[in-house]
Amino acid sequence: MIKIGITMGDPKGIGPEIIAKMWKALSARERRHLRIYGDRTVLESAAYMVGTNFEPKQLAITSSVAPPVGGVSDPDAARVAIFALDAAIEDIKNGVTSALVTAPINKQRLQLVDPSFVGHTERLAKIARVKDAVMMFSCPAHTPKNQTLRIGLVTSHVPLKDVSSRLTIARVLTTIRITVDALRRYFDCPEPRIAVLGLNPHVGEGGALGVEECDVIIPAITKARKEGITCMGPMPPETIFGRLINLDFDGIVAMYHDQGLIPMKIVCPKKAVNITLGLPFIRTSPGHGTAEDIAWRGKASEDGMLAALDMAEHLLKHA
Amino acid sequence: MIKIGITMGDPKGIGPEIIAKMWKALSARERRHLRIYGDRTVLESAAYMVGTNFEPKQLAITSSVAPPVGGVSDPDAARVAIFALDAAIEDIKNGVTSALVTAPINKQRLQLVDPSFVGHTERLAKIARVKDAVMMFSCPAHTPKNQTLRIGLVTSHVPLKDVSSRLTIARVLTTIRITVDALRRYFDCPEPRIAVLGLNPHVGEGGALGVEECDVIIPAITKARKEGITCMGPMPPETIFGRLINLDFDGIVAMYHDQGLIPMKIVCPKKAVNITLGLPFIRTSPGHGTAEDIAWRGKASEDGMLAALDMAEHLLKHA
Repeated sequence: MIKIGITMGDPKGIGPEIIAKMWKALSARERRHLRIYGDRTVLESAAYMVGTNFEPKQLAITSSVAPPVGGVSDPDAARVAIFALDAAIEDIKNGVTSALVTAPINKQRLQLVDPSFVGHTERLAKIARVKDAVMMFSCPAHTPKNQTLRIGLVTSHVPLKDVSSRLTIARVLTTIRITVDALRRYFDCPEPRIAVLGLNPHVGEGGALGVEECDVIIPAITKARKEGITCMGPMPPETIFGRLINLDFDGIVAMYHDQGLIPMKIVCPKKAVNITLGLPFIRTSPGHGTAEDIAWRGKASEDGMLAALDMAEHLLKHA
Repeated sequence: MIKIGITMGDPKGIGPEIIAKMWKALSARERRHLRIYGDRTVLESAAYMVGTNFEPKQLAITSSVAPPVGGVSDPDAARVAIFALDAAIEDIKNGVTSALVTAPINKQRLQLVDPSFVGHTERLAKIARVKDAVMMFSCPAHTPKNQTLRIGLVTSHVPLKDVSSRLTIARVLTTIRITVDALRRYFDCPEPRIAVLGLNPHVGEGGALGVEECDVIIPAITKARKEGITCMGPMPPETIFGRLINLDFDGIVAMYHDQGLIPMKIVCPKKAVNITLGLPFIRTSPGHGTAEDIAWRGKASEDGMLAALDMAEHLLKHA
């Protein structure tokens, strides 16, 4: 029975290669649950490079062009990535699959073909007609220091200068709620303790270095507490993450992409997993990008892809 | 011979206590180089609490009130902190001391007394009539993973939403130059390799998620290279810091406070040192704040203060 759809991502990136390596690492039993969406030439070239063969009936061929592998950006590569993604989304909407694991795409290139494309998270939210999806990053397992770090982002693919205007009490509160729901539902955490980060240096120093803490973040925390959520903040991110060894929180709510991603990648450089919360289906992806500088040379690690697959399976069990 | 001035910082914070603990940890020979600026009652109370006595001739008493120690914010506390700081600055301007180590102050409280107060760095730059001071954070020694992390900040005490407007080609270039000069002069690094970070998620994805990389950061890097500086970027911060174990750079230039401070505090939670570069004298401070929640209970660690003192001595030797 097919459960998990896998999209190949950008054909010029490491997606096809890490999917082939993941495939190679899986047992026949594990492979039977997968459906891999992508271009025939690209997927077969990747399989050949890493010394494996995909099982034809686990493939959903969404195009069959013969672009040269590797090399520079072009709209053809973007189109091929979109074909795979759209076919996988269609199947998950129709119940053919129950979860989606997406290999990385190149947003800049996709925007050449579809200027409205912001990112996987945003596209999935739009297609699912969900207003409030939340990007969460998670370490799939305990890190060397025995920490499980889970970070929900209030804003994600937004220029830094626009983060302030995107912060609203409603959006911060929604992110807290969705993060808490995920911790309860998926991560065996009936009473999650949440740390909500500030936005400005020294969390604004009471207004001297920025007002969003007072105007937006504190009111959202107050509302969350009234709903019975245990949450502290706004906390200075450098202090929170400096205490990682004795982290007193089950989840962290960060205000912007790099505020969450910098600590996540330090604690967990290879196995961070991106989870989209708030969708009517499960979606995960590795926490890295297309890494075109090393693509199609056999050098990319499948660790992130395997971690994303493991996480999707974990979430399915608890869905 | 007095070489190093120490300011007590905010009397309600941990400054007096960690100075007393530092004093207790030093030899008689080391103490002779210090001049400690502060309020008599505050300093003597701190010494009593930790079980030591300051040598009277090493003290510069800048006020003598009897405020209760601990407790909540008030303008008196702010005034006492400013008296100590101004006296220490006067002495360093007149050559009485050669370096300054400042215990933490509370910016919000200081602004009650002096609304123009932004931070130590900004005040020192103003008094020294220096336009381009740079805040650098450094691990004073090798971290557990054997990394020495040194990060120069393009902007520091600025609300996050104003960071973009403060980024100019000139300011980024100046920060790169001052960081490179410091690495050459103080840190035995004749040919520093610099990583310049981006500002936006995924360093702007070629403009799709922000334009400052293209408009400001890349032109500054190009100019720096023309001056013979080895610098790479704009680099995604989450990737740079994820590679910390094999860091290929001698210094990092970060665009905003938390972009540098988050990784610094993870790598080096207790001993990060703040160095002000570009002044006509040496100034360091511990990388932490006033920590009023634990002040005056004997619980504060002097590690950061000792690291700042060690760094000031190191810089003096290479000045």
